[in-house]
Amino acid sequence: MASVSAHELAKKQKEISVAEFFERNKHILGFGNQTRALITSVKEGVDNGLDACEEANILPDIYVEIKNHEDGECRIIIEDNGPGVVKKQIPHIFGRLLYGSRFHAIRQSRGQQGIGISAVVLYGQLTTGKHAKIISKVETDRPAVVNEIAIDTNKNRAEVISRDTIHWDKPTGTRVEISIMADFKRGKRFVYDYLQSTSIVNPHAQIIYKEPDGTEHIFERTSEVLPRKAVEIKPHPYGVELGTLIKMAKHTKARQLNSFLKTEFSSMGDRTTNMAIEKAGLEKNLNPKEMTREQFLALHKAFKKVKIMAPSTDCLSPIGETLIKRSLKHETQEISPEFIITASRPPSVYSGNPFQVEVGLVYGGNLPKEESVKILRFANRVPLLYQQGGCVITQAISSIDWRRYGLTQPSGKGIPTGPAIFITHVSSTLIPFTSESKEAIADVPEIENEIKLAFRECARKVQQHINKKVRRAKTREKFDLITRILPEIAKKSAHMLGKPVPPLDPIITKIMDVVWIEDLIEYESVKREPVQTTLTENQPEQKEGVITKSQIMIVNYKHTPQKFNLYAVIPQDAVVGTVSPKPSKITNNYIKWNLDTIPPANKIDIVFELAGLSKGDFDENDLYIENINPTYVIGADKWEGD
Amino acid sequence: MASVSAHELAKKQKEISVAEFFERNKHILGFGNQTRALITSVKEGVDNGLDACEEANILPDIYVEIKNHEDGECRIIIEDNGPGVVKKQIPHIFGRLLYGSRFHAIRQSRGQQGIGISAVVLYGQLTTGKHAKIISKVETDRPAVVNEIAIDTNKNRAEVISRDTIHWDKPTGTRVEISIMADFKRGKRFVYDYLQSTSIVNPHAQIIYKEPDGTEHIFERTSEVLPRKAVEIKPHPYGVELGTLIKMAKHTKARQLNSFLKTEFSSMGDRTTNMAIEKAGLEKNLNPKEMTREQFLALHKAFKKVKIMAPSTDCLSPIGETLIKRSLKHETQEISPEFIITASRPPSVYSGNPFQVEVGLVYGGNLPKEESVKILRFANRVPLLYQQGGCVITQAISSIDWRRYGLTQPSGKGIPTGPAIFITHVSSTLIPFTSESKEAIADVPEIENEIKLAFRECARKVQQHINKKVRRAKTREKFDLITRILPEIAKKSAHMLGKPVPPLDPIITKIMDVVWIEDLIEYESVKREPVQTTLTENQPEQKEGVITKSQIMIVNYKHTPQKFNLYAVIPQDAVVGTVSPKPSKITNNYIKWNLDTIPPANKIDIVFELAGLSKGDFDENDLYIENINPTYVIGADKWEGD
Repeated sequence: MASVSAHELAKKQKEISVAEFFERNKHILGFGNQTRALITSVKEGVDNGLDACEEANILPDIYVEIKNHEDGECRIIIEDNGPGVVKKQIPHIFGRLLYGSRFHAIRQSRGQQGIGISAVVLYGQLTTGKHAKIISKVETDRPAVVNEIAIDTNKNRAEVISRDTIHWDKPTGTRVEISIMADFKRGKRFVYDYLQSTSIVNPHAQIIYKEPDGTEHIFERTSEVLPRKAVEIKPHPYGVELGTLIKMAKHTKARQLNSFLKTEFSSMGDRTTNMAIEKAGLEKNLNPKEMTREQFLALHKAFKKVKIMAPSTDCLSPIGETLIKRSLKHETQEISPEFIITASRPPSVYSGNPFQVEVGLVYGGNLPKEESVKILRFANRVPLLYQQGGCVITQAISSIDWRRYGLTQPSGKGIPTGPAIFITHVSSTLIPFTSESKEAIADVPEIENEIKLAFRECARKVQQHINKKVRRAKTREKFDLITRILPEIAKKSAHMLGKPVPPLDPIITKIMDVVWIEDLIEYESVKREPVQTTLTENQPEQKEGVITKSQIMIVNYKHTPQKFNLYAVIPQDAVVGTVSPKPSKITNNYIKWNLDTIPPANKIDIVFELAGLSKGDFDENDLYIENINPTYVIGADKWEGD
Repeated sequence: MASVSAHELAKKQKEISVAEFFERNKHILGFGNQTRALITSVKEGVDNGLDACEEANILPDIYVEIKNHEDGECRIIIEDNGPGVVKKQIPHIFGRLLYGSRFHAIRQSRGQQGIGISAVVLYGQLTTGKHAKIISKVETDRPAVVNEIAIDTNKNRAEVISRDTIHWDKPTGTRVEISIMADFKRGKRFVYDYLQSTSIVNPHAQIIYKEPDGTEHIFERTSEVLPRKAVEIKPHPYGVELGTLIKMAKHTKARQLNSFLKTEFSSMGDRTTNMAIEKAGLEKNLNPKEMTREQFLALHKAFKKVKIMAPSTDCLSPIGETLIKRSLKHETQEISPEFIITASRPPSVYSGNPFQVEVGLVYGGNLPKEESVKILRFANRVPLLYQQGGCVITQAISSIDWRRYGLTQPSGKGIPTGPAIFITHVSSTLIPFTSESKEAIADVPEIENEIKLAFRECARKVQQHINKKVRRAKTREKFDLITRILPEIAKKSAHMLGKPVPPLDPIITKIMDVVWIEDLIEYESVKREPVQTTLTENQPEQKEGVITKSQIMIVNYKHTPQKFNLYAVIPQDAVVGTVSPKPSKITNNYIKWNLDTIPPANKIDIVFELAGLSKGDFDENDLYIENINPTYVIGADKWEGD
């Protein structure tokens, strides 16, 4: 064979349009087979709807319908009550890949790349040859517009096949109808699971889902409060790449280095800016557009040498421990697990992108003992259904030795076996997914580490919980024995000796020799006015509220008087009501009492009420003590500080 | 909070350039952290070099050098002796994502998307702010050109920073120098592993690798033959999506439906074309450009109703069982495994894309018994190093119950534990990777199934091997006993009785009652002329050749004469030399003898020679028998047909 010259090869070289690229690589976008295609299509539509509503401060009402034709063709209909899409943007948003509003913003959102929904349109066109139908209404007193859209994949541009206006009852909103080849029979269960999981982590959304046979599932809204809106932030100097720094300097409106740094980056005040410029050996009034690569390099290195405040985490919108616990309770009510424990890490940063990890662990009950633990993964409130094996969450869980927590795990590595569910939620301004199908998170060391720390904290709490239970059970045995037998003996002895029954308290305290803390939680229903947070049309009806009432009894069974401080940890989103006796401090996280001296054999009763929680959100007190030897106390641990 | 209108949101919506997209999502391309970035950069460069050489029919000489600077900056240098890149294509190929020659061709190649090498340039620019340097020489008697390239990410276009010509000794070739931020310390081992694995599945390539401290590794060329060149094919009707069919009809030069089908698709002869058109209820002379969606739909459905030949598999270039076995032997020489078994599936098709699966299994020796089996994954001759958990290969292996093959596997699922290495190579015109970083294959059911079938075949062979060994060992024991003890007894008895020693053969055959087949393999070195397959500059020196000599002895220890046929399976790439006695048939796969009748206690000797193999490639005969009850025979199994 003769060799082929570069000139011959050159003839074949040409540009590939991004639409062609994804058309050929549809598995990368989650359309690898017809089951996946179904779920991906629903997912992209619902994610878009939720994002749009939240961006416009509207409580989301999402409607999903699937119509199934005989020959494997499904029509997917997804409707939201969001702000709608203005007419001239419709072709771009639905008929063009890599077009959107969220890519250039540093802020937590579900969609980011401007690929999702247009990929569904592309897949539909590829497999059924049909056009997508988009209905959008942007103003209450105007008609809606209807567009039929196709994608010219060679150009990655939309073709508008038809355009019309119609009357639509909704005040505003978007409705998407796309025909795709999909396997409803196999995908049915996954679509339901996906919508259920989505509803769990988005309690502010109502989702109605109609199956091809007419069955309607309603996933109710369980919270009338929109999640805290994630704020857009500027890049943080710690995470900015040298190349990005150079590019930003090219495009800035600032004329001087110091104003460039202060206006284009987050956490850069006067002091930090000056320090960075000084460490870099540069001048404040340099024109950023005229800086050399070496100057940028010096500046980039100087960033790392200066202590710069972490980026603001307003851009994140975590779910919160209470909600995670509630979700897990909801998810596991038929299992009646032994305990549910959650942990939440403080926000952290990878490559300048803020992120936060929240985890939960359900143990025992009717969960299967011989199977691998169930792993539930969420990213920015979106459930991740596929690629579990390739996800950093799985990797982090697999790297922890779970054997000492009662789970089976050969050689202390891998997914443990046992009656447990592990839930993980990662929120970030940029979730580093392994591919555009957004099914698994890449193995970024910072994220892996935070997940590990969160689960270790969880595991510690499990351990504490078990220890506490064991110690308490032992002491109670002793206690029961004493309080049952001692009076008998005293009575009999007194009778035999013809003497009065002696006071038993000093003896009991002598034998017990502990401070005993017990608690009880009760829920009281109250009618409450819903908090009016949004401009939704439908006035929400009055709903049942719950007051969580916690009663704590402290008995001093030691033979000397005791005086110490008590802390009761409370959920961040609880509102503290009546507290008795008067606490010395109430924070977001705890109530603190400087207790009066308790004489031997005496007791103190404490009561506090919490509002803003659902029944069962707070079902066990987490108590800590201070200024007393913790080994004296049963029912509370040593306070380690805020 | 007031709701935000669609008009306000519209202001933020804009286009995202593909370069910006990948810059922000660099983890998708395999640049998630600095270790990965190092390996990905080397990989993209080497893959490109190998593809270029093979396309031009040149035996590849690849040179890789890494220079490590103090502050974590590495300079990656990759040089090939391929055809070079013509001047005006350099900016496009190296400075633009989604630009290349292999995307639109249906043919097996390493690179496909036109992303790889430009992504390295992009990553280098992003992390070091430095430009890439590209040297290319396309004609032997002309100077080379040197380009310094940057990427304008907003436009996804190259900026040529400088352009020059220099003298370069190479006849033709390309040299790429890119500075990137990378972690050489951690990545060192992986780069070596990657190059070693690459060398194993590309024995026709020589790779020289120079580490930062000057250490040079040479991975020798072990085969002077280029792999069969993968031919470009046309799309197959079974795999074409409706949307693609419509698009093809829009762009075809054919004016009639029947010529459109015959010229633009593979496997469409006159008969098949007419049948498809008829089943669709269409007319032959329809103008494809004027067909309606319904007509296309009918045609698309008709394809599935007509039997169409599988696509030609010239477009594939599998490694071959012999080479896989040789690679595994090479990889495991220090382990001295108990056995190495390979299996190769016939080519198959998913979504119209031909693919083929080859697997191998190494068992025993010094392999660790308590660890998970080692899984080696290859796709189109490229080793896959990451994302093992998310790969269909792992999924297929995990779904097989390996417990009956002596491996530990709780509940018969998951990666088994035991002393084994599993190797899998998938070749295809379009490997469905889960992401652009090309680290894992998506879970396409057809591919998963073929991998399972291949490993099941492997497992069956393992089982056969074990059974054969056990049966043979038992019979040999019996045999040894008889041949040692029987003559003693006969001698003593004869002596005692004063009679001559009786003939023992009839007695031995009576006791043994089997046909015994034994074989021996020897290698003979010969000087051989290398096959001149390419126009490389360096005349390859004479190399040692090997003749594999197989000797088979068949003894009839049954008490009746036996007449049967014998098959010896031979490797596909072996050349058959002397064979004695004269065989009745020689195919690519086996030699067949219609043996003469063997009287009781008589034997037949068979000898055959194979050329074209390396020492050890063929180290055990795989023998089958026909026209005899297989339970009579030790050392060969029943012939099940070709």
